[in-house]
Amino acid sequence: MQHYLSLKDIDSLPQWVEEARSLKANPLQYKALGDAKAVCLLFFNNSLRTRLSTQKAALNLGMEVIVMNFGSEGWALEYGDGTIMDQGTSEHIKEAAQVVAQYCDIVAIRAFASLTDKEKDEAELVMNGFKKYAGIPVVNMESSVGHPLQALADAITLAENNIKKRPKVVLSWAPHPKALPHAVANSFVEMMHLQEADFVITHPKGYDLNPEVTKGAKIEYDQDKALEDADFVYVKNWSSYQDYGKVMNQDKKWTMTNKKLGKAKFMHCLPVRRNVVVADEVLDGPNSLVIQQANNRTYSAQIVLKKLLESLKG
Amino acid sequence: MQHYLSLKDIDSLPQWVEEARSLKANPLQYKALGDAKAVCLLFFNNSLRTRLSTQKAALNLGMEVIVMNFGSEGWALEYGDGTIMDQGTSEHIKEAAQVVAQYCDIVAIRAFASLTDKEKDEAELVMNGFKKYAGIPVVNMESSVGHPLQALADAITLAENNIKKRPKVVLSWAPHPKALPHAVANSFVEMMHLQEADFVITHPKGYDLNPEVTKGAKIEYDQDKALEDADFVYVKNWSSYQDYGKVMNQDKKWTMTNKKLGKAKFMHCLPVRRNVVVADEVLDGPNSLVIQQANNRTYSAQIVLKKLLESLKG
Amino acid sequence: MQHYLSLKDIDSLPQWVEEARSLKANPLQYKALGDAKAVCLLFFNNSLRTRLSTQKAALNLGMEVIVMNFGSEGWALEYGDGTIMDQGTSEHIKEAAQVVAQYCDIVAIRAFASLTDKEKDEAELVMNGFKKYAGIPVVNMESSVGHPLQALADAITLAENNIKKRPKVVLSWAPHPKALPHAVANSFVEMMHLQEADFVITHPKGYDLNPEVTKGAKIEYDQDKALEDADFVYVKNWSSYQDYGKVMNQDKKWTMTNKKLGKAKFMHCLPVRRNVVVADEVLDGPNSLVIQQANNRTYSAQIVLKKLLESLKG
Repeated sequence: MQHYLSLKDIDSLPQWVEEARSLKANPLQYKALGDAKAVCLLFFNNSLRTRLSTQKAALNLGMEVIVMNFGSEGWALEYGDGTIMDQGTSEHIKEAAQVVAQYCDIVAIRAFASLTDKEKDEAELVMNGFKKYAGIPVVNMESSVGHPLQALADAITLAENNIKKRPKVVLSWAPHPKALPHAVANSFVEMMHLQEADFVITHPKGYDLNPEVTKGAKIEYDQDKALEDADFVYVKNWSSYQDYGKVMNQDKKWTMTNKKLGKAKFMHCLPVRRNVVVADEVLDGPNSLVIQQANNRTYSAQIVLKKLLESLKG
Repeated sequence: MQHYLSLKDIDSLPQWVEEARSLKANPLQYKALGDAKAVCLLFFNNSLRTRLSTQKAALNLGMEVIVMNFGSEGWALEYGDGTIMDQGTSEHIKEAAQVVAQYCDIVAIRAFASLTDKEKDEAELVMNGFKKYAGIPVVNMESSVGHPLQALADAITLAENNIKKRPKVVLSWAPHPKALPHAVANSFVEMMHLQEADFVITHPKGYDLNPEVTKGAKIEYDQDKALEDADFVYVKNWSSYQDYGKVMNQDKKWTMTNKKLGKAKFMHCLPVRRNVVVADEVLDGPNSLVIQQANNRTYSAQIVLKKLLESLKG
Repeated sequence: MQHYLSLKDIDSLPQWVEEARSLKANPLQYKALGDAKAVCLLFFNNSLRTRLSTQKAALNLGMEVIVMNFGSEGWALEYGDGTIMDQGTSEHIKEAAQVVAQYCDIVAIRAFASLTDKEKDEAELVMNGFKKYAGIPVVNMESSVGHPLQALADAITLAENNIKKRPKVVLSWAPHPKALPHAVANSFVEMMHLQEADFVITHPKGYDLNPEVTKGAKIEYDQDKALEDADFVYVKNWSSYQDYGKVMNQDKKWTMTNKKLGKAKFMHCLPVRRNVVVADEVLDGPNSLVIQQANNRTYSAQIVLKKLLESLKG
């Protein structure tokens, strides 16, 4: 593996999940692997879980960690080829990526979707710029179109709680006052493609995700029908993909409740808006896996960093 | 000890001061204690001394340190029970606290008073939220109502400079152009309750601190009288407590000078406004202990972290 | 050496360059030197290269690194003697510098020129304040008037690429939409004074650097003439020094191109505005040394920290 940019970089999900669970059982077993290796974590957007869990993962592997809020502490980046840079941007991604690579062995990046320009968001300028120019492994800490560290943590959590060969897993849209990106939902769908499961996506009409991502997945617009006999319900808001970045529906009928959930386990990537996305009773009840998911973020980051370190050594 | 939230968490102040002085004499003697342990420092407000000294203390103990400016780098937190989170807050303290605890062993938090809502400030929403939900030890790096790491550093400084069994210690209010919190003054008063001393508080009328905090302490509105034969004078501004958060007096007669100080040692927690709170001649003179106080911040943080680490191991 | 504030602190540039190249060949050879030593990096301005390379250098030496964005995370500093601090500043440099020195062994500082007040910029209030009051070694990570870590990295890069006893080196001004400081150009000139070279500075009339800095250097206003037979061309924008901080010329005739460059190697400190300061063809061509310069920032910082650590031990 050269990079960890999307679920496509995983060669065998069951194998990775097993290795991650072994890391969780004994987090310091590869402490020597990261000796004299440094990872730069570059944040173009806010972060709590990703910031802390990725640092923790790197420290568990004995790596040095350098954290930078690129947006506020660095220079505004230019991505265009041939641009005459006489406006607001001070540094080109070509230089920025090569330069960062002089000071670390792996670079991890968070750069959210703008939700105003679909084409630009899907071009993944920051992530692909670093991939193209840095010459060192790049880790996606949430880009415009994916959040593969989250999806990997979700896979670990599913494995830890699953007792069936083929569980029913539902991805259920929820209302939210703000326009949110599609990254978490996209990566969750991609991850489910790599699993044995009866997988259903449910959301109001007009909220279909990118059809290239959901290709082959079952979509059911009737939430009640979708939730029937679910084993796991992953709840997440996203804004419209067709009418890109718009909030068209805030219908509280889609808010997850204990009644809707039934015996299923509840999953969410956090942060979550209580009593909008999901009722208090669910988060505070015994079926919520959200803290376990957050905990598994450390081990999804750690298995990724471990594999990249091994490929550097190899 | 489960947490270090206020002076009440100290079982024996003389014992702690003695142990802190031993750490100061040999700061790396417990370097192995923090091995494979991480502390998260979460700042909801600015910091210089606390930021640097707490990091230094943790490094002296061999801990990993993860620093986060929660206000600017994380998500706006909700504290209300049952709130329908469709407004400005993105994450509930219930999740945030549990999540942070997944990535570290101890969490230290700075969250200042708003000075606009006394009831809310006194509820200590951030500190108590983490205490209630994090499930790991919480350290107060200055909350709305207390700054117990500062007060512990002050106790160390008093001990280092004291030659009497029962010194006279005066807490003297000083003018300031801005409304400042009561946290430092409160914790200093609480700390003095744990010491053998002739302790006097002096301030203009209308500046009485919370009577629950000062209960049993001598209050003297005449500064000259209060300062008579003082051995230590701790100067600090605070805004009105009764007329909460108001600046009612900026009278320079309360500014500390060499004449007023006499032979007493001068103390202040810093940052300090020169020639408003205290004259240059005092800070630049031989009786100022302010840099020694700042230095002792490392050892007050280190003794607290050491005791929490020991309780984790135990 | 007590501090690294300007090129004047280098006793023998050839010797330093040789030692830095040895560090580059084996970066971890002095890993034990920084054991139990901490460096604080204080940023009053944005930074990418300096932030990452100085951290990397310190980690290579086994030091602890504490990074702080002083401007946004700390308190507004006062520099005036005798000021009555009842306005916007909260802490005096006298206290701030002494306090920082309680928590680290070396302090490195970035504080740019304002470009609005020449006298104040040249007084180097931040750097000189820390030098005067901190009592520990101070490293200049770019001040109002100099960027000596960059110039030292440039000297290493020159040495790595030079095949002549006396190369021709040209410092060529370039257009830029914003007013930029003189620090990089100043330190490059000062560094060239310490080298065997045919050194020429070229810029439009009205853009003369501080004559005290360029004293003895050859200045040629005709760029074509200056560039004739050059071996190295260092391109950099700066604003007017005489009409302090003004942008008087954005003439694209001064933009560096392959035609102008000829066989010379191209140097720039970065960040660089493509197709304003220099054409894409140069940066993307084989004669550009900019990434090598960025890489050498680690070793210029490392040799400086190493010498300061040795002086502390000595």
